[in-house]
Amino acid sequence: MYFNVEKVVYEGPSSKNLLAYKFYNPEEEIAGKKMRDWFRFAVAYWHTFNSRGEDPFGSATFERPWFKKDPMDTAFAKVDALFEFCEKTGVEYFTFHDRDLAHEGLTLRESNKILDKVVEKIKEYMKSSNVKLLWGTANLFSHPRYAQGAATSPNPLVFSYAASQVKKMLDVTKELGGLGYVLWGGREGYDNLLLTDSALEEKLFARFLEMVVEYKERIGFNGVLMIEPKPKEPTKHQYDFDASTVLYFLKKHNLFEHFKLNIEANHATLAGHTFAHELRVARLNGKLGSIDANRGDLLLGWDTDQFPTDVYETTFAMYEVLENNGLDCGFNFDAKVRRASIDPEDIVYAHVSSMDAFALGLKLAVKLREKVKPMIEERYSEYNSEIGMKILEGKTTLDELSSYVEDLTDVRVKSLKQELLEMVINDVIFGGR
Amino acid sequence: MYFNVEKVVYEGPSSKNLLAYKFYNPEEEIAGKKMRDWFRFAVAYWHTFNSRGEDPFGSATFERPWFKKDPMDTAFAKVDALFEFCEKTGVEYFTFHDRDLAHEGLTLRESNKILDKVVEKIKEYMKSSNVKLLWGTANLFSHPRYAQGAATSPNPLVFSYAASQVKKMLDVTKELGGLGYVLWGGREGYDNLLLTDSALEEKLFARFLEMVVEYKERIGFNGVLMIEPKPKEPTKHQYDFDASTVLYFLKKHNLFEHFKLNIEANHATLAGHTFAHELRVARLNGKLGSIDANRGDLLLGWDTDQFPTDVYETTFAMYEVLENNGLDCGFNFDAKVRRASIDPEDIVYAHVSSMDAFALGLKLAVKLREKVKPMIEERYSEYNSEIGMKILEGKTTLDELSSYVEDLTDVRVKSLKQELLEMVINDVIFGGR
Amino acid sequence: MYFNVEKVVYEGPSSKNLLAYKFYNPEEEIAGKKMRDWFRFAVAYWHTFNSRGEDPFGSATFERPWFKKDPMDTAFAKVDALFEFCEKTGVEYFTFHDRDLAHEGLTLRESNKILDKVVEKIKEYMKSSNVKLLWGTANLFSHPRYAQGAATSPNPLVFSYAASQVKKMLDVTKELGGLGYVLWGGREGYDNLLLTDSALEEKLFARFLEMVVEYKERIGFNGVLMIEPKPKEPTKHQYDFDASTVLYFLKKHNLFEHFKLNIEANHATLAGHTFAHELRVARLNGKLGSIDANRGDLLLGWDTDQFPTDVYETTFAMYEVLENNGLDCGFNFDAKVRRASIDPEDIVYAHVSSMDAFALGLKLAVKLREKVKPMIEERYSEYNSEIGMKILEGKTTLDELSSYVEDLTDVRVKSLKQELLEMVINDVIFGGR
Amino acid sequence: MYFNVEKVVYEGPSSKNLLAYKFYNPEEEIAGKKMRDWFRFAVAYWHTFNSRGEDPFGSATFERPWFKKDPMDTAFAKVDALFEFCEKTGVEYFTFHDRDLAHEGLTLRESNKILDKVVEKIKEYMKSSNVKLLWGTANLFSHPRYAQGAATSPNPLVFSYAASQVKKMLDVTKELGGLGYVLWGGREGYDNLLLTDSALEEKLFARFLEMVVEYKERIGFNGVLMIEPKPKEPTKHQYDFDASTVLYFLKKHNLFEHFKLNIEANHATLAGHTFAHELRVARLNGKLGSIDANRGDLLLGWDTDQFPTDVYETTFAMYEVLENNGLDCGFNFDAKVRRASIDPEDIVYAHVSSMDAFALGLKLAVKLREKVKPMIEERYSEYNSEIGMKILEGKTTLDELSSYVEDLTDVRVKSLKQELLEMVINDVIFGGR
Repeated sequence: MYFNVEKVVYEGPSSKNLLAYKFYNPEEEIAGKKMRDWFRFAVAYWHTFNSRGEDPFGSATFERPWFKKDPMDTAFAKVDALFEFCEKTGVEYFTFHDRDLAHEGLTLRESNKILDKVVEKIKEYMKSSNVKLLWGTANLFSHPRYAQGAATSPNPLVFSYAASQVKKMLDVTKELGGLGYVLWGGREGYDNLLLTDSALEEKLFARFLEMVVEYKERIGFNGVLMIEPKPKEPTKHQYDFDASTVLYFLKKHNLFEHFKLNIEANHATLAGHTFAHELRVARLNGKLGSIDANRGDLLLGWDTDQFPTDVYETTFAMYEVLENNGLDCGFNFDAKVRRASIDPEDIVYAHVSSMDAFALGLKLAVKLREKVKPMIEERYSEYNSEIGMKILEGKTTLDELSSYVEDLTDVRVKSLKQELLEMVINDVIFGGR
Repeated sequence: MYFNVEKVVYEGPSSKNLLAYKFYNPEEEIAGKKMRDWFRFAVAYWHTFNSRGEDPFGSATFERPWFKKDPMDTAFAKVDALFEFCEKTGVEYFTFHDRDLAHEGLTLRESNKILDKVVEKIKEYMKSSNVKLLWGTANLFSHPRYAQGAATSPNPLVFSYAASQVKKMLDVTKELGGLGYVLWGGREGYDNLLLTDSALEEKLFARFLEMVVEYKERIGFNGVLMIEPKPKEPTKHQYDFDASTVLYFLKKHNLFEHFKLNIEANHATLAGHTFAHELRVARLNGKLGSIDANRGDLLLGWDTDQFPTDVYETTFAMYEVLENNGLDCGFNFDAKVRRASIDPEDIVYAHVSSMDAFALGLKLAVKLREKVKPMIEERYSEYNSEIGMKILEGKTTLDELSSYVEDLTDVRVKSLKQELLEMVINDVIFGGR
Repeated sequence: MYFNVEKVVYEGPSSKNLLAYKFYNPEEEIAGKKMRDWFRFAVAYWHTFNSRGEDPFGSATFERPWFKKDPMDTAFAKVDALFEFCEKTGVEYFTFHDRDLAHEGLTLRESNKILDKVVEKIKEYMKSSNVKLLWGTANLFSHPRYAQGAATSPNPLVFSYAASQVKKMLDVTKELGGLGYVLWGGREGYDNLLLTDSALEEKLFARFLEMVVEYKERIGFNGVLMIEPKPKEPTKHQYDFDASTVLYFLKKHNLFEHFKLNIEANHATLAGHTFAHELRVARLNGKLGSIDANRGDLLLGWDTDQFPTDVYETTFAMYEVLENNGLDCGFNFDAKVRRASIDPEDIVYAHVSSMDAFALGLKLAVKLREKVKPMIEERYSEYNSEIGMKILEGKTTLDELSSYVEDLTDVRVKSLKQELLEMVINDVIFGGR
Repeated sequence: MYFNVEKVVYEGPSSKNLLAYKFYNPEEEIAGKKMRDWFRFAVAYWHTFNSRGEDPFGSATFERPWFKKDPMDTAFAKVDALFEFCEKTGVEYFTFHDRDLAHEGLTLRESNKILDKVVEKIKEYMKSSNVKLLWGTANLFSHPRYAQGAATSPNPLVFSYAASQVKKMLDVTKELGGLGYVLWGGREGYDNLLLTDSALEEKLFARFLEMVVEYKERIGFNGVLMIEPKPKEPTKHQYDFDASTVLYFLKKHNLFEHFKLNIEANHATLAGHTFAHELRVARLNGKLGSIDANRGDLLLGWDTDQFPTDVYETTFAMYEVLENNGLDCGFNFDAKVRRASIDPEDIVYAHVSSMDAFALGLKLAVKLREKVKPMIEERYSEYNSEIGMKILEGKTTLDELSSYVEDLTDVRVKSLKQELLEMVINDVIFGGR
C-alpha cells in the first residue's frame, strides 16, 4: 500500500471529513450529463509517479516507496501505485508519455520492448478496473538528442527518432483505448532567432504532423489528435505560442481538420491570456478537445503547475466547458505538489481538493450562465435592428452606413455594467450561505 | 438626487436583494470589534467624484450630473454627491487630495481660498452627518510643474510649492478631524537614471519629510503620517518602491518613528509582491497604518485600480489585518469603475460588493486563523528544543552547531503540507453550504 | 519658425556636430537600394504635433507654439509645423489619423468639412515639397462613443460611425497619394470576457474589413491595407493580439489576400515577443507591409512608445527588412518624447538619433548577414541528405523513419554556437574601431 | 587538454582574429587603474565546470571531458580544467560553493574531508599560477534537507547543518586567500505565506548572520562579507528581494556595518529593476562589494544567466563601478552557455566576448561620464540658490517655503533632455567610426 488513506468518497457539502468529496459526485447529473462525463479526471504519470521533486536549484526530495533499485521494478511498482491511487481517489483516467512508464534502452527497439512490458501490465490491470487511458503522448524533449527540437531539429535523424516515438505511442494509445493523443512541442521553438531558419523549421513541423495524421488514419486510431499550446520555456519562444497561433499554423498547412487543442491553464497565463480566454478561442473554433488542469502563479514567470483550487477560476473554466457541452477527452491534472510536500498523501489532498473545486465550479457555472446570458442578450440587443441585421449579413457598404450616421449628433453606448456582473458573480458563489 | 438607488442596508446572506449587504453589518461584533471599526470604509474623491473616465487612449465617458459649467458649482455639487453617496451606501469615511475638491487658482494663495470654501461646505455637512475624513493628502503629481518630481524636483521652487501644498493640507486635515495624512510620491522617482543625481534627490526627499514632521507636531495634528509605496508608473522607477524600500529610507534618515505605511493592493502586485505580503511586511514592522483597497490585473502591467471582490484576496488581507488587530486608519477604496461603466449606479454596485467581499473575508479569516495557527505551531515546533532555543536566543556559535550535526547522516524536514492547507482554505470558504 | 535648429544634414561618422546625420545618407546605396527607399521615414502627427504631454497621472506639459486659441488656427499651424519639421530634418513622410488634423464637428458631416480644409492646405504644401503621405488611418478609439469598441461595439450605430470615418479616410488617403492605409483596433477587444459575445464581435470585425476591402477596390485606391497588432491596452485583451493571431483571423474570414501587417516594436514586446520575431512572422507569411518604429521598456507594462536608438535592436530589425527586400510602406515613428522633454528641439533630437540608429542598423545588418548565413547553412546542412530531402518533400512515413533509427545508439546534434554568434555580433558592430 | 584553443591575448580593436581580445588589455590603465584591477574577472565553478546542461524539461547535454566515472577523479579533473581555462583565457579569479568542488559524504565530517583534498590540489596549483580566489560560498539550497530553507528552515538541525557548512567555507576561503565571502539565500524565503512564521524566520536569518560575523572576526578573515539579493526562484518570494530590502534587514538587525552586497544583473531585472539601478542603490549606500556579471532575458520570467555581451548594458554598469572607484571583489561570471552549446570551446567564446564587452564598456563609461556630468550639474543648478541651500541644509520650514511661492504664477522646470542624452550615448559609442 503506497497511499495511507481510506477510499475518498462523496459525502456532500456538510461533511466534516476533510478527505471526502463535498461537491464531486460522479453519478450526479448536471445540465444533462453525469459529473463523471463532464470531467473524466485524469492523473498525470509524470508529475505524480515519476517526479522526484528536483528543481533548477535542488535535487530530489520525494522518496516515493515505489522507487526501487532496479528500473524495471520501479516501472512495475509505478503501475501498482497508479491503480491504487485511482482506486482510492476515484480518479478514472490517466495520461502518460512513453518515457514515463519506463527508462530508455540502448536503442529505440530496446526502449519499445521495455515499454511493451509495462503496457502489458497496465492492460492486465485495466481488465479488472474501470480506470482508462485519457490520452497518450511521447516525450520529445527530455533526452539530449532533442536539445534543439524534435520535429524542428536541424538533424533529420532526430526528426526520425521523434517520428518513431510518436508512431510507437500511437500504437500504444490505440491499444490501450485512449480517447486522444497529444502533441506538446516542448522543444519545438527557438533559443536564438538569428540562428534559426524559421521557414525550414515550420515546414518540418508541418511535415511531421502530416505523417502523424497519415499513420493515425492508417492504423484506424479513432481518438482525437491534439496540440498543446505553450508560449515559452524551455525554449525562448515556442512555435505553439497560444491557441490562435496553433490554429493559424494548422490552417496554413491544411491540417486544420485533423487536430484539436489541449488547453493548459498555466500555459495560457504564460502567454498573457486568462485560462478562460484560451478555452473560449478553442471553443469558438470548434477545437476544444481537452484540458490540462492546473494553475500558474502570475507573479512568477515559469510554469509552476500548481493544483487548481481557486473556485473563481474553475467556475470561469467550467462556463466555457458548459458552452462547449463537454470535452472530447477530459481534465488531466498536469499539476504537481510542491517540492516540499513530500508525503504521498499530499498527492491525494491535491487531487481531491482540485476535483472538488472543479465540481463546485461546474455547479456554479450553471447558475452563473442563467444570470449572464440575459445580460449579454441585452447588451447586444441593438443588433436585432434593421441596420444591425444588414451589417451582420454583409448586405451593406461603407457608403450606406455613412448615410445613416453622418447627421447624427449623439451616438452612445449603454453602460458595460462590469461592476454589476462582479456583484452577481459573488452572489452566485456566496449567496444563500 | 445623484444616485438613483435606495439606501443599501444589511439584509444578511439569504437576501435575494442584489443591492443589500449580505455580510457587511456595521454593528456586528467580530473578534472583539464591531465591523464598522475593523473597516472604516472610505470613498476616494478622485476616482468617484472627479474622474471623467479618460484613459491614455480616450477622452471622458462619465457625464456625471454633478459636473456643472462653473467650476465652483461643480466643486459644491461634488460635496452634495459625496454626502448623498455615503448616506445611501453606509460608507462612513472619505479621502481626498487638495485638488480633488476644487480647481487651482492663478496663485497658491488663490487656490487655498478656493479650497477653503469647499472645506467650509464639507464641515457644514459633517455637523449633521456621521461621515468623517479618513485621511487627507496633497496632489503633487498632476500639474506640469511636478513633471520631474515634487520634493525631488531639480527646481527648489517646485519643492517649495509642494511643501506649501502639504502645509495647507495638514491644516485642512487637522481641521476636518482626519485620522491620518498620506504622502504618495507620484512623481518622486526617475525616468532616466543617468540624468538623475540620486544622492541629491534622496536627500531632498528626506528634508521634505523632516519638515512635514516638524510642522505636524507644531500644529498638534494627532493623526498618523503615512507613506504609500508604489514601484513605478507614472515614472519608470519610484523611490517608494515597496514597503521594505520605504522602511529602509525611513531608518536611514532617522524618520522611522514618524511614519507608517498605507498599503495598496495594486501597488503591491506591480512591485512583484502579493497584497498579503506587503501587509505582512508592514505589520511585522509595526507600520501597517491604512489600506488602499483595490485590485490589479496581473496580466496587465499598469495600475488598473479595480474594485476588490475576490473573496480569497479579501480573506488573506483580512488575515493580516486581524493579526494587526485593526488599522490606525481604515480601508480606502482607491478604485474606479471601468471606463465603460458610465452610470452613477455602477459606483454603488462597486462599493457595495467590495464592502461585502471584505466583510465576508473578515469572517472567513477568523475561521481560517483557527485552522492555520496550529499548523504553523506544529511546523516550527522543533524550535522549542534546546538547540532551537539557543539559536533563537543568540547563545551559540558556528562551532557549537557544527558539533551537533557533523556526524549525523540524516537531517530532514517534514512535509510542508501546502496542498492540505489549500484544501483547508476551500473547506473554510465553501464548507457547510 | 517653430523649430529653432538648422537643417540637419549628413556629415558622416567623423562629424563632431551632434545635430548632423552620421549614418543616414538618403542618397547612399546599400544592398541595391538607396537609403531613402529602404526607410521612407515618417513623422507621426499624433505624437509630434498633437500631443500635449498628458499622462494618466498628469496634465499637459507641452506648450507647443503651434497651439492657438482657435482650433482651426491650431489645425493650420500644425500643418506649417509639419512641413517645417520635415524640411529641417529630412523626414520625407508623415502619417495621421483623421482626428489628428482637426477637431470634430457636431456631426460627422461637419467633421468631414473641417477635415477637408486642412487636407486642402496639406495638398498645397505637397505641391512644392517632396514630403509625402506614408499612410492614413482613422481614430476609432478616443471618442467616448468607442468606449466599447468600434467595429465590435454592441451598438450598430457606433459600427456605422466607424465605417463612415474609415470611408472618409480612405478617400483622403487616396487623394493625398498615401502608400497604404492602417487599421489599428484600439478598442476592438474586451474588458470583460464573460460579458462579451466573442463570436458576434469577431463576425462584426470581419464584416467591417470586408466593407473596407470592397470600398477600397471600388474607389481604386492602390495602397496596401494593413492591420496593426497589439495585445492589450487600452482594453484588457485586443483581438489583434499579435501577427499570428491576425493572420489566423484573416485566413478564417477569407480576408488573407487583402491585408498586410504594420508591425510595432512596443506592441511586439507587450505580446511577449521580440520586435524581430514579429517582423519575421510577418515576413515569412508575405505580410510585412510597414513598421511602427519605436521602443518599449521591458520593465514597464504599458506602451511607452520611446524613440528607438538601441543599435542592436535596429540591426536585428533591419536584418528582417533586408531579407524582406524592403517594405511596401516605410518606418513611421510611432514614438513620443518623454513628457518632461518639453522643448520642440527635443523632437528633432529624437528623430535624428533614431534615423541614424536605423541607418547604422542597416549597414550592420548587411555585414551581419554575411556572417550569419553560412552559420545557418552549416547548421541545417544535414537536411541535404537523402533522408532529409525525403522528409522535406513529404515522401516518407513514420514507419520508414522508424526503420532508419530504431537500431541507432547515438543520435546527436552539433553545438548551437549561440555564444560564438554573440561574439560575431559584437565583432560586426564594434570591430575595427 | 580540455579546451582546444590557443591562449587568448589582447590584439586590439583592429584584429581580425575572433578569439582575441579587442578591448580587454589587463595592463592598460584607465581612469587611474589597470583594467585587471577594475575587473578581477572570475569564472564560476558551478556553471562552467559542474553543470551538465540539465533544465527543468531535459537531462544532461554537456559531456565534458573532465567528467570521470569516479567522483573523486572528476573533482580533481575539474581543478585541472579550471587552471587550464584560466591560463588560456586570462581569467585571473574563480569562485565556488563547497559542493562545486566535490560530492558530499555520508556525514558532514566526511564531506569536509573530501573537500579538503580538492582544496589541497587547488592550493598546489595556486603556488605556480597567478589565479586567485575571488570569493567563496556554501551551497545551502541544492540538498533536500534545505527544501524549506537553510537559516530559515523550520528545523534547527537544518539551521545547524547550514551553519556548519558556512563555518567550513569561511575557513577554506580564508585559507585560499579569497577577497570575500558571499551568502546567497537560495531557499531563504517562502513558498506559502500563510504557512510561514515570518517573524521567526527573519529572526533566525539575523541570528545566522550574527554568528557568521562573530566567526569571521574570530578567525581573522579579512575579506568582505556579502549578501546577494534575488527576488524569487526557487522560492515564490526570497527574503533578500533586492538591494533596498537587504539594506533594511541589515539596519534593523544591527548588521549593517558587517555586510556589503553582491549585485547580479539577472536578479536585478527579476526584481523589476535595471542592473544599473541596483548597482547605484548599493553604491550610494557604500555597499557595492562585487558583481555577478550576467544577463537575463526580459521576456522570460526566470534566471536565464546568459553571458553579458550587450555593450549598452556593460557601459551603464561600468558607469556605476567607475563612480564607485572599483569593487572590493570583482566581476564573477555567474553565467552559463546555452544548453545546446555543448562544446567546451563555447565556454571560451562566452567568457572572452563578455570580458571584451565589459572592457569596452569601461572605456565608453569614461567618455560618457565626461558628457553626462555637466548635464547633471546644469539640471540641478538651481539648488545652488539661497533657497536651494536652505532646503538642503534643513534650515527652513513649510511655512517659510510657502511664503516664497504662494504668490508666484509661474513655476516651471526645464526640459529633461532625455532624447538629447540618448543621442549623446550613441555618439559616444558609435561616433568617429
